[in-house]
Amino acid sequence: MFLTRSEYDRGVNTFSPEGRLFQVEYALEAIKLGSTAIGICTKEGVVLAVEKRITSPLLEPSSIEKIMEIDEHMACAMSGLTADAKTLIDHARADTQQHRFSYNEPMPIESTTQSLCDLALRFGEDSDEGGGMSRPFGVALLIAGWDDQGPALYHTDPSGTYVKYSAKAIGSGSEGAQSSLQEAFKDKPDMSLAEAEVLALSTLKQVMEEKVTATNVDIARVAPKYHLYTEAEVQALIGRL
Amino acid sequence: MFLTRSEYDRGVNTFSPEGRLFQVEYALEAIKLGSTAIGICTKEGVVLAVEKRITSPLLEPSSIEKIMEIDEHMACAMSGLTADAKTLIDHARADTQQHRFSYNEPMPIESTTQSLCDLALRFGEDSDEGGGMSRPFGVALLIAGWDDQGPALYHTDPSGTYVKYSAKAIGSGSEGAQSSLQEAFKDKPDMSLAEAEVLALSTLKQVMEEKVTATNVDIARVAPKYHLYTEAEVQALIGRL
Amino acid sequence: MFLTRSEYDRGVNTFSPEGRLFQVEYALEAIKLGSTAIGICTKEGVVLAVEKRITSPLLEPSSIEKIMEIDEHMACAMSGLTADAKTLIDHARADTQQHRFSYNEPMPIESTTQSLCDLALRFGEDSDEGGGMSRPFGVALLIAGWDDQGPALYHTDPSGTYVKYSAKAIGSGSEGAQSSLQEAFKDKPDMSLAEAEVLALSTLKQVMEEKVTATNVDIARVAPKYHLYTEAEVQALIGRL
Amino acid sequence: MFLTRSEYDRGVNTFSPEGRLFQVEYALEAIKLGSTAIGICTKEGVVLAVEKRITSPLLEPSSIEKIMEIDEHMACAMSGLTADAKTLIDHARADTQQHRFSYNEPMPIESTTQSLCDLALRFGEDSDEGGGMSRPFGVALLIAGWDDQGPALYHTDPSGTYVKYSAKAIGSGSEGAQSSLQEAFKDKPDMSLAEAEVLALSTLKQVMEEKVTATNVDIARVAPKYHLYTEAEVQALIGRL
Amino acid sequence: MFLTRSEYDRGVNTFSPEGRLFQVEYALEAIKLGSTAIGICTKEGVVLAVEKRITSPLLEPSSIEKIMEIDEHMACAMSGLTADAKTLIDHARADTQQHRFSYNEPMPIESTTQSLCDLALRFGEDSDEGGGMSRPFGVALLIAGWDDQGPALYHTDPSGTYVKYSAKAIGSGSEGAQSSLQEAFKDKPDMSLAEAEVLALSTLKQVMEEKVTATNVDIARVAPKYHLYTEAEVQALIGRL
Amino acid sequence: MFLTRSEYDRGVNTFSPEGRLFQVEYALEAIKLGSTAIGICTKEGVVLAVEKRITSPLLEPSSIEKIMEIDEHMACAMSGLTADAKTLIDHARADTQQHRFSYNEPMPIESTTQSLCDLALRFGEDSDEGGGMSRPFGVALLIAGWDDQGPALYHTDPSGTYVKYSAKAIGSGSEGAQSSLQEAFKDKPDMSLAEAEVLALSTLKQVMEEKVTATNVDIARVAPKYHLYTEAEVQALIGRL
Amino acid sequence: MFLTRSEYDRGVNTFSPEGRLFQVEYALEAIKLGSTAIGICTKEGVVLAVEKRITSPLLEPSSIEKIMEIDEHMACAMSGLTADAKTLIDHARADTQQHRFSYNEPMPIESTTQSLCDLALRFGEDSDEGGGMSRPFGVALLIAGWDDQGPALYHTDPSGTYVKYSAKAIGSGSEGAQSSLQEAFKDKPDMSLAEAEVLALSTLKQVMEEKVTATNVDIARVAPKYHLYTEAEVQALIGRL
Repeated sequence: MFLTRSEYDRGVNTFSPEGRLFQVEYALEAIKLGSTAIGICTKEGVVLAVEKRITSPLLEPSSIEKIMEIDEHMACAMSGLTADAKTLIDHARADTQQHRFSYNEPMPIESTTQSLCDLALRFGEDSDEGGGMSRPFGVALLIAGWDDQGPALYHTDPSGTYVKYSAKAIGSGSEGAQSSLQEAFKDKPDMSLAEAEVLALSTLKQVMEEKVTATNVDIARVAPKYHLYTEAEVQALIGRL
Repeated sequence: MFLTRSEYDRGVNTFSPEGRLFQVEYALEAIKLGSTAIGICTKEGVVLAVEKRITSPLLEPSSIEKIMEIDEHMACAMSGLTADAKTLIDHARADTQQHRFSYNEPMPIESTTQSLCDLALRFGEDSDEGGGMSRPFGVALLIAGWDDQGPALYHTDPSGTYVKYSAKAIGSGSEGAQSSLQEAFKDKPDMSLAEAEVLALSTLKQVMEEKVTATNVDIARVAPKYHLYTEAEVQALIGRL
Repeated sequence: MFLTRSEYDRGVNTFSPEGRLFQVEYALEAIKLGSTAIGICTKEGVVLAVEKRITSPLLEPSSIEKIMEIDEHMACAMSGLTADAKTLIDHARADTQQHRFSYNEPMPIESTTQSLCDLALRFGEDSDEGGGMSRPFGVALLIAGWDDQGPALYHTDPSGTYVKYSAKAIGSGSEGAQSSLQEAFKDKPDMSLAEAEVLALSTLKQVMEEKVTATNVDIARVAPKYHLYTEAEVQALIGRL
Repeated sequence: MFLTRSEYDRGVNTFSPEGRLFQVEYALEAIKLGSTAIGICTKEGVVLAVEKRITSPLLEPSSIEKIMEIDEHMACAMSGLTADAKTLIDHARADTQQHRFSYNEPMPIESTTQSLCDLALRFGEDSDEGGGMSRPFGVALLIAGWDDQGPALYHTDPSGTYVKYSAKAIGSGSEGAQSSLQEAFKDKPDMSLAEAEVLALSTLKQVMEEKVTATNVDIARVAPKYHLYTEAEVQALIGRL
Repeated sequence: MFLTRSEYDRGVNTFSPEGRLFQVEYALEAIKLGSTAIGICTKEGVVLAVEKRITSPLLEPSSIEKIMEIDEHMACAMSGLTADAKTLIDHARADTQQHRFSYNEPMPIESTTQSLCDLALRFGEDSDEGGGMSRPFGVALLIAGWDDQGPALYHTDPSGTYVKYSAKAIGSGSEGAQSSLQEAFKDKPDMSLAEAEVLALSTLKQVMEEKVTATNVDIARVAPKYHLYTEAEVQALIGRL
Repeated sequence: MFLTRSEYDRGVNTFSPEGRLFQVEYALEAIKLGSTAIGICTKEGVVLAVEKRITSPLLEPSSIEKIMEIDEHMACAMSGLTADAKTLIDHARADTQQHRFSYNEPMPIESTTQSLCDLALRFGEDSDEGGGMSRPFGVALLIAGWDDQGPALYHTDPSGTYVKYSAKAIGSGSEGAQSSLQEAFKDKPDMSLAEAEVLALSTLKQVMEEKVTATNVDIARVAPKYHLYTEAEVQALIGRL
Repeated sequence: MFLTRSEYDRGVNTFSPEGRLFQVEYALEAIKLGSTAIGICTKEGVVLAVEKRITSPLLEPSSIEKIMEIDEHMACAMSGLTADAKTLIDHARADTQQHRFSYNEPMPIESTTQSLCDLALRFGEDSDEGGGMSRPFGVALLIAGWDDQGPALYHTDPSGTYVKYSAKAIGSGSEGAQSSLQEAFKDKPDMSLAEAEVLALSTLKQVMEEKVTATNVDIARVAPKYHLYTEAEVQALIGRL
């Protein structure tokens, strides 16, 4: 049974008899191995929070970037293969700059997200447009932005699909974190940015194995501009927990 | 027996000893895993209705698009891999715009459908024209439109064939839904658009596991222009059931 | 024994130890799964008759095209993969138009048939001219036409060979149908077009599981121009049985 | 033992440990499945005779061409895959026309044969010049011609080698036929064209399962021009047996 | 179990069912077979120290280059496949020269590191930009440099990720060496360049099987310019241990 | 043991664990299946002698060419796949004509041999210059010539190496023939051309299964021009044995 | 265990789970099958000495070239596949001529060596620059030269790495020969060219199975120009042993 299944799942872009694309499903597994990331969308802006795995005390925490700016009104948090994420983000940065140049306005968040998903879908052997990738991108993104439509949070995955969320967790601790977020939103659906900051950090704290410190998490907001919190700001936020 | 069969079905575009193309058949399985979609053609216009799977209360239902406009006189409902559908629809949108530009008229519904099927057929290793796809498109479409010939509803599948229908259901609940549609048409072959709206929604209701709400279904009509129903309109329609 | 054989038959274009090309033989199997089609050549013209499988009462029978015009003096009936047939017929239509443009005369029937067979033979990995096909075309055609040489009926198959016939049946019911045609020709080798119409329809009736109606068969003639019978004409013909 | 062998023979163009090219040997098997063809060279000209397999009484015998003209001074009989032969003969026809255009003389028989063998040798994955073939050509030819050197008969096979013969049989009945030809030449090495005609037909008769008729064999001569015998001429020849 | 796993790990760029890229992980193994290299970043500059495996007394030690200059303000130490490292360094040298030419300033250390990682990520079958590599680069680098931001030490690996370190060891002795570095930094986080030189050499001494001599190690600093220590300088440093 | 080995030997151009290239070794086997050819170099010129396998009395012996002229001062004898040899010789003929055109002198023998070996080495999947060959050439050549350096005899094989010989035998009888040649040269190292003719033919006689006749061997000399012996000359030589 | 290993080692350019590139290691085995070659570098120049395997007394020893000139100031000795070496040396010859043309000076020895190693590294499926090689080059070189830096001896292998040596042996007898060279250098590290000549030849003598003669070894020096010893010079050197 298992052996027969294995014959399908090596095909990079081939359907199994049940209509499944195994390589895409396995790329989703790569994300479950990644560090946890959380996004929360409020009317005052979007908060992103990520766990950083500091494997050595000699490592410079700031060089682990799990939240990256796309444009001044848009950023993303990632979980999975960091190098894959950088390829996608480089692509998005070029797109948003091109949009500003052509239309003299910030690129809408959904358009940017769609463009990233198009790229993610085009992996495979014959595709020149897929960033030279011969496999699915092994990364999920939480894209936070603020445009004409107000603040927005999108989630993309290796299958090239995206969905808009009020709050979403990805990575190894995503299951527990998503439940906590749901709980919190049921209690208070219309939270302030300050409340979202605390919720993001406290949810992250639950699923992290190590104690939360100012160096092993990154927090950012898009409200309406992107801002990555300084160590002092993160420390202050930890104090508010 | 089973092992021998499996040796054929990984070939992306290879005949089995019984003359079957397994990858195309497996792509059809991908559609059976998809959400249900229903199309009904009347003399007053075509109605499309789809189920949306809201996997989390934090997810924004409007960001799940299962009905998409192709041109102002044409739209489609999809079941299967959403990202594949978007590639096909992007292609159709370019085609219809090109047609308007060249001939100063809306593109006929059957021409657009044929063009989509040509694209679907051209997957495979040597095909540059197949949208860079190295496998069949894992999606079925219900194409609704209104042209010189009046309203029309077409169904396309991964094998690149299309057929015109009075009413058609696709996706995981298609079997039960198609029976209901057939029953209804036997009773009343010449229904009004208002009756078709109610039939589409009530058929969807039968095959959906969850209760029908204004957010977990999408309804649209082409009569003769495309219109996606607002939440209020859907709510009103639910009331009419 | 069987396992060893299976090692050869996946090779798209490779000889087995007995000198056979299995993929071509399997494509022939695809045709045996297809709907039955019949062609009869008389001095007054050629008749084509096909079975249409109406899988649902909601399906529009006229959208299933199993007989297609190539040029005003030539048409074909098909059995097997419909989408493959459309690729071949598009090719033939371009050829015949090109011939009219270059020589100001209708293209001879045999030249068109040869051109289709050249295309069918050129499938495979390195062939740019084979319509981007990486496998044999899974379709058989009955090509009916009228040129300087008078009426003619050709049969083509996936191996790229063609033969001229007085009368020929293809598809799932071809074996029984071919016997009936042979019988009929033995009795009356020189039949009129009207007799051929009746023979085609009655032969089709024998091998069809369902009752023959004006919507589940298509009849056409080339005599000397192509004409697809209207529903009324088919109904009249059914009456003459 | 057998399994190990099978691992080599699927390689399109790979040596086995014994230095053999199995795909070429298997293409030779395809010829042994073909209809029998015979060629006899005399000082007065060359005779070609082939068996035609009439699988249905409704089939038009003249549409089965097993002897084809290359130029007015050259023709060939074939056994094996007819469609492959047509590709080779199209190539030869272009070559001979090109030669006439360049040098204002008929192309020598051996040059044409060498050119066909070059094409046959160039099959394989990287070859653009091999007619797009990814496998050996599955056909043997008997090339009959008359040039400055007088009449000549060449035999080509899928390995791309050619040899000149006084008389040669190919196809399913070739073994028995070749013995008869050898016997006859031992008795009368210097036969007339009329004697060769009778020998060719009587040899064919021996190896054919069916009775020889004017429609199930084709006879042609190059003496010094190509002439395909009419049904009446074949009938007369049958009478002379 | 093991056999099933092995079916995934030969795929150059394919996910295993657990979401792992085995070829990248195996390339990391190639580095564990390499000679040890150490980098230490201080406020006064960065020190690099490497072990050189002198397999024969007749070998010229200076021809084994394990520390290479990239630009006058940047250098790297390597462990793993030396020839792969040279390809990467050639690329980096061209990048830094290009940067000087375009902007008239030294290229920032992180930009250069990012550019190397982009190259490392782009291996695989379809990538023209990946230096023609059909497998991951089997080398890790310690990049030492001094730019506007002051001194910096980056570590890159075959997965195309980079991280900044205060001190980092790579190669076969990296595990033990990294512990020693951590210990030393805990005692004295703010060491001088002179102290770093001694720490680097003494750490290397611990993990090397042979006695440290002036010829079997290489020491270099970027402070703020690159300087490779002469044999006399290395000898003096050994004296200071 | 044997199975493991077989896994390497299908790789067209892959090393086995012992550092062997099996496809090249198997091509050498193809030569051991070939007819025997002998070359002897004397100060008065070079003699080539080959066995011709006359498989049927109806075959024209002169159409089996195992000795071919390259230029008027150079020729070669072959053993193995004749069609492969023709590709190589066509290449050499073009080279020598090009040399005459460019430098107005005959091409040196060693240069021509080197050029043939370059071609032989370049087989394989990525090579456009390898004559389109996806496998090694299955043929050995004995190249006889006379240039500024006097007479010379070179031997080339499928590995792309060449060596100069005083006398050399190739093909199925090469082992026995080479011993005889060695014996003869030990007795008389400085033989005349007439003696070499007799030695070549008598050595061939020993290893041939059939009786030597004027039609089943070919003899040629380059002294200093190429000359293929007529049947009468061969008959006379047989008389001198 | 062994079977699992064999699954990796056929991958031309794929890492095994232990981080090894088996095809490169197997190419190294091809060198261990080769004839022995020795290089010795002194202040007065570099000596190269190689064994020539004279497999037949009829073979012309001078046609086996195991030492080849690259430029007048540089030469190399080889062990392994001779035909592969010629491809590399052709490349080096073109490089050195190009260098003289561009800079009007002899090319430095290390630059030429690096260029050869770049070529050796670029084998593989996607590489157009790798000389069309789809496998590693199966040859090791000892490159002897004299440039601005004085005399130098480099060793290159199939992995694309090079190292400078005072003295180095390669090929089947390399292990024993290298020990002898080491011994001799320990006794006398600063030898004259004349002493190096004797050492090279006496070391070769130890590891050769046959008696050393003036025809079965080649000796050359670069001091500072390349000179291949004549038979008389080799004979004289043998006398000095």
